[in-house]
Amino acid sequence: MSINAPRGTVDILPEATAKWQFVEATIRELANRYHYKEVRTPIFEHTELFQRGVGDSTDIVQKEMYTFEDRGGRSITLRPEGTAATVRAYVQNKLYGDPIQPSKLYYFGPMFRYERPQQGRMRQFHQFGIEVLGSNDPAIDAEVIGLALSCYEALGLKSLKLVLNSLGDTESRKNYREALVEHFTPCKDGLCNDCQSRLEQNPLRILDCKTDRDHPAMKSAPSILDYLNEESRVYFEKVKKSLDVMGISYVVDPNLVRGLDYYNHTAFEIMSEAEGFGAITTLAGGGRYNGLAQDIGGPETPGIGFAMGLERLLQALEAENIELPIDNALDVFVVAMGERAELEAVRIVNDLRQSGIQADKDYQGRKVKGQFKAADRVHSKYVLVLGDDELDKQTINVKAMAEGTQQEIAMSELVPYLQQQLGGK
Amino acid sequence: MSINAPRGTVDILPEATAKWQFVEATIRELANRYHYKEVRTPIFEHTELFQRGVGDSTDIVQKEMYTFEDRGGRSITLRPEGTAATVRAYVQNKLYGDPIQPSKLYYFGPMFRYERPQQGRMRQFHQFGIEVLGSNDPAIDAEVIGLALSCYEALGLKSLKLVLNSLGDTESRKNYREALVEHFTPCKDGLCNDCQSRLEQNPLRILDCKTDRDHPAMKSAPSILDYLNEESRVYFEKVKKSLDVMGISYVVDPNLVRGLDYYNHTAFEIMSEAEGFGAITTLAGGGRYNGLAQDIGGPETPGIGFAMGLERLLQALEAENIELPIDNALDVFVVAMGERAELEAVRIVNDLRQSGIQADKDYQGRKVKGQFKAADRVHSKYVLVLGDDELDKQTINVKAMAEGTQQEIAMSELVPYLQQQLGGK
Repeated sequence: MSINAPRGTVDILPEATAKWQFVEATIRELANRYHYKEVRTPIFEHTELFQRGVGDSTDIVQKEMYTFEDRGGRSITLRPEGTAATVRAYVQNKLYGDPIQPSKLYYFGPMFRYERPQQGRMRQFHQFGIEVLGSNDPAIDAEVIGLALSCYEALGLKSLKLVLNSLGDTESRKNYREALVEHFTPCKDGLCNDCQSRLEQNPLRILDCKTDRDHPAMKSAPSILDYLNEESRVYFEKVKKSLDVMGISYVVDPNLVRGLDYYNHTAFEIMSEAEGFGAITTLAGGGRYNGLAQDIGGPETPGIGFAMGLERLLQALEAENIELPIDNALDVFVVAMGERAELEAVRIVNDLRQSGIQADKDYQGRKVKGQFKAADRVHSKYVLVLGDDELDKQTINVKAMAEGTQQEIAMSELVPYLQQQLGGK
Repeated sequence: MSINAPRGTVDILPEATAKWQFVEATIRELANRYHYKEVRTPIFEHTELFQRGVGDSTDIVQKEMYTFEDRGGRSITLRPEGTAATVRAYVQNKLYGDPIQPSKLYYFGPMFRYERPQQGRMRQFHQFGIEVLGSNDPAIDAEVIGLALSCYEALGLKSLKLVLNSLGDTESRKNYREALVEHFTPCKDGLCNDCQSRLEQNPLRILDCKTDRDHPAMKSAPSILDYLNEESRVYFEKVKKSLDVMGISYVVDPNLVRGLDYYNHTAFEIMSEAEGFGAITTLAGGGRYNGLAQDIGGPETPGIGFAMGLERLLQALEAENIELPIDNALDVFVVAMGERAELEAVRIVNDLRQSGIQADKDYQGRKVKGQFKAADRVHSKYVLVLGDDELDKQTINVKAMAEGTQQEIAMSELVPYLQQQLGGK
């Protein structure tokens, strides 16, 4: 009986990995251009980190984590998101003591949530994310948003929408929270079960509810923007001004509250507006979390970041019919005729590779015709043909497949000749 | 109280990730040159896969796996190695039906073993590996070995040793196994506990034992090479001949048996001979495993591969004092004097980035002197200075830090000027 990959996980096979590699290289280059540096945190963390850093009241922590005991009896959890671990690494490794401030960090990697698998939602999924720790400058909020957008734009996506909001500082949020409780309490019984408990634990998240979206009390709910104190209002204005000079357009949506407990001030999401993209249109989300480092045991540190789903990104590329410029063709395939040539082909392929040229040969004991067919299947740009005649003369027959031409080249000239043909590789 | 990363795991921080990125990019380029394609399998698999694919009698499966039940009650294991999962992906996705044969696959990623953490041995560690499925050609064994060696050589390592052996086909192995049982049974009581049970389960692994290394029966043990049948002997000769024409030197060691049950024919290891490298000198190991695909429910398929530890590789680079050519300097830092310039600097930095130039600015509210200091800390190649004067004239002051020169450039000329200075980026 054969064994399959666990439910909610998939294998990424060569045709798809080529796309992933292209997307990751593009994003990595952009992150470098914005002067972000990579951090890599472990795949699992102590469970307590996520209880504190994501929030005990969230669906993630309550229902969706892969939590288990290791052989030493410690409770360990496969990371469900990247922010808590990145901030934990910042605190544990005392990056706040680095003279280069703020710390501008990025990460790539798998995340794990035990949810019902559906289109665009897997149990193992992959994110790119950034975190900036140590700056309270509204211009950095704009930079973070700008980098997120650039990732999509650099890959050719056009149907994008940036939604922006401010959740204000602790005082503003507290006042708004009270206003929401006051507003929703009279109609509490008409809300869904989740929202009834949200009313006590985190009333802001009622505004995010998919079930109660059309409830009349939603439309008439107070707006956070009317509860921002002066400092929070000024901060938000400055973020918008920075986005303006960067030529980035946005829509302010006071109902954008984000699922996690730790956000304050700037919150944003990037959505795909491509037709047929599917029900979940959010590509990336992020915001400011000035209290988080302290919550997990570090010094008081302002922070802001975002995470983007890479599966979603690839799905958006498909929805917009974007072909990534991936060159899948092999440079050189060596066809050997006869036993002597067989062994000589091993040497030639190795020489080419040692000289920086991509090369391959047959390993299936195919006859000459089969070898040509194999070269054709991998779209080889050059096919080299070697038999007893060529061996005696110390030459090799080089076929340029696109041009349909062929030339006899002295064996000693082969590497420089191909290097030149392939563009000075 | 602060929370740390779990024992046996580490954070890889920016200075180190730059090395990892360089190493991975080098290896990835080589894998492409040898015409291997990437596959990505999930971080966890059904536990049964490793029981079948690594072997119930191995230390890995018996003592070292991170095994747990998911919320659906299924037994799941964080992958302890990459071969079983790659072969599982090959079988499940029917890659044997692909007209391009053999399947030449590579992978990168974290692996997990619950061991006592020590230098060069972590609970989460990282491997690069390749697997070739579908070819029985001795020349592919040589290619696989050649690619492993190339990875180290391309990074500048010199003190390398390639150790080679053949475990023969099933018949040869069976005969040898019997000879070993006969040889070791009389002195069974003098062997360590592990070897006493190995004698029944997998006597070949006695030859690998660190505890019994100096036992007199080890020296006099029969050699596998005397038990190879004709077919296995010819196969091994052909592998060596291919290595010879590729100019790869090796040492044949009949005691090299590798820990896993599924190997046959070619087995190899690459060791570091650098002084002070540490007790564990193996950098990479691999071999042929013609029965594995069938063991996990697929069709009979020949296979060969290797895995290399990336932590070990980095450690070997250190032992040989190899400095990787990593450019850590920032291209452009923009210094702003005054409030008008502040906002304009946001625009300029964004423009530069959109034009492909790496750029950054201050986000700490630093005064001019502090901004220069910040630019210096990140080794900025160019520092742009912008104040009210420059804004009025629509110019900007460009300092080339290496040369110690400066020039006033019209704002409209800034991007092309810097692109040219930075070498046509």
